[in-house]
Amino acid sequence: MPTVRLDLGYDGSGFHGYAKQEGLRTVQGELETALGRVLGGSPETAVAGRTDAGVHARGQVVSFAAGPTLDTEQLLRALNGMLGPEIAVTRAAMVDNGFHARHSAVWRRYRYRLGTRPGGDPLTRGYTWDVGRDLDREAMELAAAVFLGEHDFSSFCRGGGSSVRQVEESRLIAEDEGVLVYWVRANAFCHQMVRSLVGHLYDVGRGFASADDAGMVLGAGDRSLVVTVAPPHGLTLWEVGY
Amino acid sequence: MPTVRLDLGYDGSGFHGYAKQEGLRTVQGELETALGRVLGGSPETAVAGRTDAGVHARGQVVSFAAGPTLDTEQLLRALNGMLGPEIAVTRAAMVDNGFHARHSAVWRRYRYRLGTRPGGDPLTRGYTWDVGRDLDREAMELAAAVFLGEHDFSSFCRGGGSSVRQVEESRLIAEDEGVLVYWVRANAFCHQMVRSLVGHLYDVGRGFASADDAGMVLGAGDRSLVVTVAPPHGLTLWEVGY
Repeated sequence: MPTVRLDLGYDGSGFHGYAKQEGLRTVQGELETALGRVLGGSPETAVAGRTDAGVHARGQVVSFAAGPTLDTEQLLRALNGMLGPEIAVTRAAMVDNGFHARHSAVWRRYRYRLGTRPGGDPLTRGYTWDVGRDLDREAMELAAAVFLGEHDFSSFCRGGGSSVRQVEESRLIAEDEGVLVYWVRANAFCHQMVRSLVGHLYDVGRGFASADDAGMVLGAGDRSLVVTVAPPHGLTLWEVGY
Repeated sequence: MPTVRLDLGYDGSGFHGYAKQEGLRTVQGELETALGRVLGGSPETAVAGRTDAGVHARGQVVSFAAGPTLDTEQLLRALNGMLGPEIAVTRAAMVDNGFHARHSAVWRRYRYRLGTRPGGDPLTRGYTWDVGRDLDREAMELAAAVFLGEHDFSSFCRGGGSSVRQVEESRLIAEDEGVLVYWVRANAFCHQMVRSLVGHLYDVGRGFASADDAGMVLGAGDRSLVVTVAPPHGLTLWEVGY
């Protein structure tokens, strides 16, 4: 059957995460309900990154099988009419039949946004962790670089399973004055990995850990060494590569 | 008397503009009430840019006279405790007695943010005008450049008074994919000037006017030629120069 790819962004604040859960408001739940109304039936969708409760997305990708007569422009308009403004579908396209939003993805890129200004920034507070204090950016940059390459990230993973990941980008940049942005790209991420990495960077930035500690924590494979897990609302799934 | 300078940001969505108005919730009203509670009396403040209803600020500047024993760090914390999260005071400092937030300012810089992705961007919709369609960026860039320099902006001003202004920056840039940002800096702005400039740029971008029309409209000094005024929520007072 023909396959449809949807690109979407959402404000995760009002959802219990991406994945469907009985009786709870989730992004997948809302999306599949809307798809069912437009297309009929009960469409089942695959997703590139199952974001946790409170986590946002700008470039999430979803795929599903559809009939051959689907008008993607019409679908885009109909979905946005039903899902907006918290969920926005930015693209709907027919793709190769072998395409699968999750299995075909070769990397995911996340952004974590930290605010250091006193009182925070009222305009961006929905998707920024406003720590309201100065951080040692140089030490954080050094620590961020430690995560580059292939490592066993079990110190930064919640739950079981393999935690070997290939990190291709891990850098902290000063965006506007008072804003630090952590960009991280990897083939895949284990559960709560980005928030745990950022939590550790934050501890480095405030002097609770040194830049050298990042390598030690990474090598130890011991989750208890990661003291701080950054809150979900600072995190956004930015882009998925195929 | 010693003078205090406050730097502040606010989400303008919930306010009837900056300037005090009897019986309405305004930024100045909230700020002066909070200052009165901390300092006693009824402090009178001056402001760099009186933003309209729905317009935001990231680098607004306010000044007022205060007693010589004021602890600015304590003031900063107390104000943020009372005003947050919609208003954030990012800095409180004693400055030269001659300082006046409005009269001492030599330029103001505004940002106007346009979103072109279908369905908008759920995360930034509070401060972005989501037009949800492609715009001719090249034509808009050309038109934006026409506004540079000293001109009589009466076609782009609401209300009376002199409308000669010196524009030192007027450029449109592509930020993220699907985001166009207009930056404009001038010695001062007349009423609704930025929103009228952006409205005209938008008409150029969607092909209702040509880039050449910008010069014609500017030269004509006729407000009826500006058909579109961009909505307030896309506008943010970004920075003030002294």
